[in-house]
Amino acid sequence: MPSEFHTTRRVAFSDTDMAGIVHFSRFFVFMEAAEHAFLRTLGTSVSTAWNGNKIGWPRLEATCTYLSPAVFEDVLDIHLKVIRKGTKSLTYRFEFSRGETPIAHGKLSVVCCICNPGEKIRSIPIPDFIADQIREATT
Amino acid sequence: MPSEFHTTRRVAFSDTDMAGIVHFSRFFVFMEAAEHAFLRTLGTSVSTAWNGNKIGWPRLEATCTYLSPAVFEDVLDIHLKVIRKGTKSLTYRFEFSRGETPIAHGKLSVVCCICNPGEKIRSIPIPDFIADQIREATT
Amino acid sequence: MPSEFHTTRRVAFSDTDMAGIVHFSRFFVFMEAAEHAFLRTLGTSVSTAWNGNKIGWPRLEATCTYLSPAVFEDVLDIHLKVIRKGTKSLTYRFEFSRGETPIAHGKLSVVCCICNPGEKIRSIPIPDFIADQIREATT
Amino acid sequence: MPSEFHTTRRVAFSDTDMAGIVHFSRFFVFMEAAEHAFLRTLGTSVSTAWNGNKIGWPRLEATCTYLSPAVFEDVLDIHLKVIRKGTKSLTYRFEFSRGETPIAHGKLSVVCCICNPGEKIRSIPIPDFIADQIREATT
Repeated sequence: MPSEFHTTRRVAFSDTDMAGIVHFSRFFVFMEAAEHAFLRTLGTSVSTAWNGNKIGWPRLEATCTYLSPAVFEDVLDIHLKVIRKGTKSLTYRFEFSRGETPIAHGKLSVVCCICNPGEKIRSIPIPDFIADQIREATT
Repeated sequence: MPSEFHTTRRVAFSDTDMAGIVHFSRFFVFMEAAEHAFLRTLGTSVSTAWNGNKIGWPRLEATCTYLSPAVFEDVLDIHLKVIRKGTKSLTYRFEFSRGETPIAHGKLSVVCCICNPGEKIRSIPIPDFIADQIREATT
Repeated sequence: MPSEFHTTRRVAFSDTDMAGIVHFSRFFVFMEAAEHAFLRTLGTSVSTAWNGNKIGWPRLEATCTYLSPAVFEDVLDIHLKVIRKGTKSLTYRFEFSRGETPIAHGKLSVVCCICNPGEKIRSIPIPDFIADQIREATT
Repeated sequence: MPSEFHTTRRVAFSDTDMAGIVHFSRFFVFMEAAEHAFLRTLGTSVSTAWNGNKIGWPRLEATCTYLSPAVFEDVLDIHLKVIRKGTKSLTYRFEFSRGETPIAHGKLSVVCCICNPGEKIRSIPIPDFIADQIREATT
């Protein structure tokens, strides 16, 4: 029952800005892509059907701290950890590094919701088929 | 009955790339934003309700020719022209300039469709409340 | 000597995602655009020349808390406040709302740096021509 | 001596828009990423040093034709072909498909340039170490 996940991502030209480095907003896109890859390893998706409902994970909070710039064609290591598993929500921590160099770290807090088209979004306890597969990291 | 529309757009930092200029893909976002501003001047929107259906305008083709780079904080003039008005589709031409300097020109071909959630998208004749407001440019 | 700034921004189609709302990463782009508009009101830019050097403002930290979704063509009010003015750094707070509805709030911490091409970026005290124009908000 | 290149790309959540499909502008980002992956297979990069100069490949023209929508988590096949090899420029054709379903096709025309910081960009014949590795596709 995993509490963490590793992936890598190569910086694209379109991730960079005129300062010659990865635009700070792109790290949030990188975090989300890692979150979704993690969910795929559990056999589910950030957008999935369940009991006739559409389950989604709206974001409550997102933060990123920038330590060192990343540049075009860098291959970033991304380390995801589930640092909080609530009844309805998850908080992920992400660490970005390039080799031994820490690049950035961040957090995403997300809440499990029924997101049926035409209905008001409402939060729900994380369904067992997902919750049973995720463990809060101990450190 | 308009066949053209002018707007301006200031280049944002996030529009630039490590070459120090506007990333080529952003011109398509600029075109689309001008198209949508044009539709608002007609009292409609690219995504609107009509006879209980949801009308949208999927893209058929998009092209852009790059003449001169645009840089951060440039204020670009954007000139939209309806160069073809079909029964079901529209083709827009866009000219981007900064003062006297031509920057780029492009085209978007879009088709009027019923885009109801859960149904297959299907093209329809442009409804009169829109078609009656748009004229094909003569030059 | 201003400590705050107001602007508005209309949500573009390209700001939205398949959940039908503004993608969470876009709020960081909106914050940055407001920051840059604020700097323009002071007669400067986020990327400017000074004493033969290129001044920039790399990001140290970015956070956003999401309260209510924003959708296509919403006109968001954006309220920027300088909540900390250090010797070398600034922290901005941003509040996003649509009419009376709070949408999100966030923070950007940025540090004044010499960013000459080919040199290592190094932080510097905020030059007087900028520092003298910015006041820390009292509340 | 290759004239073509295959890659795949999984559609990210941030590639989608409120229509539930990949935003049309993202296909240009996908084309560029495939172009850059192709250049890496030749041991070079879209941004590289050569004889003390910085070589880059500004875009002259970009086009895309949309055949069928792509959605979140689709894995797209991307097939790049060099359809024209000039003295100074290359034209790439891209075909996007999902299994047997054609999704889109497009073109990028790019020109080899010296892009030294602080100098005017100027086109040059493609250096031999690149030109010798690329062949124009016969069909």
